Amino acid sequence: MALIVQKYGGTSMGTPERILNVARRVKRWHDHGHKIVVVVSAMSGETNRLLALAKAITETPDPRELDQMVSTGEQVTISMLAMALNTIGVKATSLTGRQVGIKTDSSYTKARIEAIDTDVMTSYLDAGQVIVVAGFQGFDSNGNTTTLGRGGSDTSGVALAAALKADECQIYTDVDGVYTTDPRVAPKAKKVDRISFEEMLEMASLGSKVLQIRSVEFAGKYQVPLRVLSSFDNDDDGAFDEDFKQNVGTLITTEAEDNMEQPIISGIAFNRDEAKLTILGVPDLPGIASNILSPIGEANVEVDMIIQNVEEDGTTDFTFTVNRGELAKAKSILEATAKEIGAREVATRSDIVKVSIVGVGMRSHAGVASTMFTALAKEGINILMISTSEIKISVIIDEKYLELAVRALHTAFNLDRESGESSVRA
Amino acid sequence: MALIVQKYGGTSMGTPERILNVARRVKRWHDHGHKIVVVVSAMSGETNRLLALAKAITETPDPRELDQMVSTGEQVTISMLAMALNTIGVKATSLTGRQVGIKTDSSYTKARIEAIDTDVMTSYLDAGQVIVVAGFQGFDSNGNTTTLGRGGSDTSGVALAAALKADECQIYTDVDGVYTTDPRVAPKAKKVDRISFEEMLEMASLGSKVLQIRSVEFAGKYQVPLRVLSSFDNDDDGAFDEDFKQNVGTLITTEAEDNMEQPIISGIAFNRDEAKLTILGVPDLPGIASNILSPIGEANVEVDMIIQNVEEDGTTDFTFTVNRGELAKAKSILEATAKEIGAREVATRSDIVKVSIVGVGMRSHAGVASTMFTALAKEGINILMISTSEIKISVIIDEKYLELAVRALHTAFNLDRESGESSVRA
Repeated sequence: MALIVQKYGGTSMGTPERILNVARRVKRWHDHGHKIVVVVSAMSGETNRLLALAKAITETPDPRELDQMVSTGEQVTISMLAMALNTIGVKATSLTGRQVGIKTDSSYTKARIEAIDTDVMTSYLDAGQVIVVAGFQGFDSNGNTTTLGRGGSDTSGVALAAALKADECQIYTDVDGVYTTDPRVAPKAKKVDRISFEEMLEMASLGSKVLQIRSVEFAGKYQVPLRVLSSFDNDDDGAFDEDFKQNVGTLITTEAEDNMEQPIISGIAFNRDEAKLTILGVPDLPGIASNILSPIGEANVEVDMIIQNVEEDGTTDFTFTVNRGELAKAKSILEATAKEIGAREVATRSDIVKVSIVGVGMRSHAGVASTMFTALAKEGINILMISTSEIKISVIIDEKYLELAVRALHTAFNLDRESGESSVRA
Repeated sequence: MALIVQKYGGTSMGTPERILNVARRVKRWHDHGHKIVVVVSAMSGETNRLLALAKAITETPDPRELDQMVSTGEQVTISMLAMALNTIGVKATSLTGRQVGIKTDSSYTKARIEAIDTDVMTSYLDAGQVIVVAGFQGFDSNGNTTTLGRGGSDTSGVALAAALKADECQIYTDVDGVYTTDPRVAPKAKKVDRISFEEMLEMASLGSKVLQIRSVEFAGKYQVPLRVLSSFDNDDDGAFDEDFKQNVGTLITTEAEDNMEQPIISGIAFNRDEAKLTILGVPDLPGIASNILSPIGEANVEVDMIIQNVEEDGTTDFTFTVNRGELAKAKSILEATAKEIGAREVATRSDIVKVSIVGVGMRSHAGVASTMFTALAKEGINILMISTSEIKISVIIDEKYLELAVRALHTAFNLDRESGESSVRA
């Protein structure tokens, strides 16, 4: 008898038939006596349809009106799922962000949740009903409709789970969990049964698209056990076995106290969306880093990795990476800076990628970096930049070595699936 | 400087381009210093699209969920119109039924308005903003979304005008006013500049589709001047001339005190959707009408006209009309009754129509009925049934005589447009 929040994305809600499937899954859980809150996204494609209507009116729609408009996508799916549940004999009620009581600030299109009222939900749950809540939306102190921005439905799910002190927040998606790395790049990738919030956060920041960073942050902050699982599998009936918590999907939770069995590295993330800029022959004076990076920051270009090294002639080379899409913008700013500070030249490359190993095991194991660098060297892969944090090491390498590097590291850190072990489901 | 409520239907809101046209019209009114509240319907076709989605889930969707769902149609159009207004420089805010404060009972899909809070509207209007309100919807005392049923947006418009004590409620539609009769049947039909609530109510009940009965009742009850006008004309700039109130569209209002110029008959309505049933040879006993009509009423079949006449043999023939679509249902009930009460037989006809003349002038003019019957007799049209009220006379005739009857009456009561007079706009 648990209180569970389940979140279904746009693909799971994509057609009436799929919505009926979701209803049947919810019923299985409900039939076992669990209290269920379901959070849903709009039907896939619907938000884009609405945005196109707005764009046909004006290129720059008023943000308040945009939120008023796009929030209807979830209002349709909550009603459809509640209808479906009622039809198959599960008493269910749909609630919009306002009806459920998700209070946000007034930052339209990217609002932050300020408080959640649990009274309404509790009264429905106590009456044995399933609640179907519109994700992605809330309302501000003046009753205006707001939306939470990209990945908002995941955040809604986690926030409701936190407010209700739910036993688990389940994020149903089109993959069956978090993998050691992308199986399309490394076929021996395997599903991770359990991963810490911190590791998941690094994985997400580094390019894993399974969960939105914001929802993982939120779950970590409020210690909400978060499970990623597939909405296309039907074997989560195992949910009612003792083993459930161990085996289905991936559970993202606080670090296990007993980490005897914990692998040193939990996963390998990569990001193709990288570019680097180098400004060469910079007179080496104090404050030079700030002189170079401030104009970039002011232009809202996010800088990731940074390296500075002093040449023998007393000048400095300064290298940093940005999102590939912002290379042109960053380059023109940097060229202006180069002129101003008397640097020799600016060089850029966009045929690079970032590969990262992530794992809380690094904290207690020495030699992780050396294992990584040796594995890459063995394959003749040159490292262009390095950056480390407490639980991850990232390197920038030539784009052409991406697959090779990921597979080599996957093997080097003993992440390969054993033959016969089957992790990727049909 | 007036306070005006304008209502635009689904056709006027049918495309982004049309919504921009509505915005330009609202701007013209607003630019002249009027306070404007706009009430809109969903884009034409949208409500049906949503109903089809519901039907794909279940044939019998939960009414609460249906209202939650279909109310999104208007939420999209209010946002689009507010975006359009803001884009052309008119500060505007969209409000859902709940945001504006339209409180209803909890009769989902056919809720009745109980109260309207004017505080929110007043504060926006006082700040010089245009308010765009979702028609057709409200919310109940528990915060559930409700809809007002067919024609609900007209009712929303009139209710808001009543609550705000607006100077006028303007219903924009695809015709430029109320006509003496349907111009497709009588080409000499002309637009009526002014008509009383009572007459409009009779016209609507009798088949004129320009306005929903409920909104006319509401307007009459709260004495809200109601104007029907075309959303495709652009010459309502005349709105700012002295003559406006007289000339544009049709004004539905309280009866003019000075009715010197009032025509005896304001219009001719007709309804093709009629069928009649006769039960013959009924033993003439007290309570027979009730015995015959009670089972019909219990089956939710609405009875319109009723005639009873006693035959020479002491039995009675009893005739009544119903909606043509309910003839089969009514017939089978009546046949059961016939057996029970020992009547001779049941006869039905569905090739009949109802033609009615409507006018408050009847009250003060004798001989109206006689003029009507003479005009029909002259054309050889046989009258099958007659029913009268204070301001209307209806007859049932053979369907084939419909056009002939309408034109003959139109001429007999001097409603014909004079040659050269142009009423129907291109």
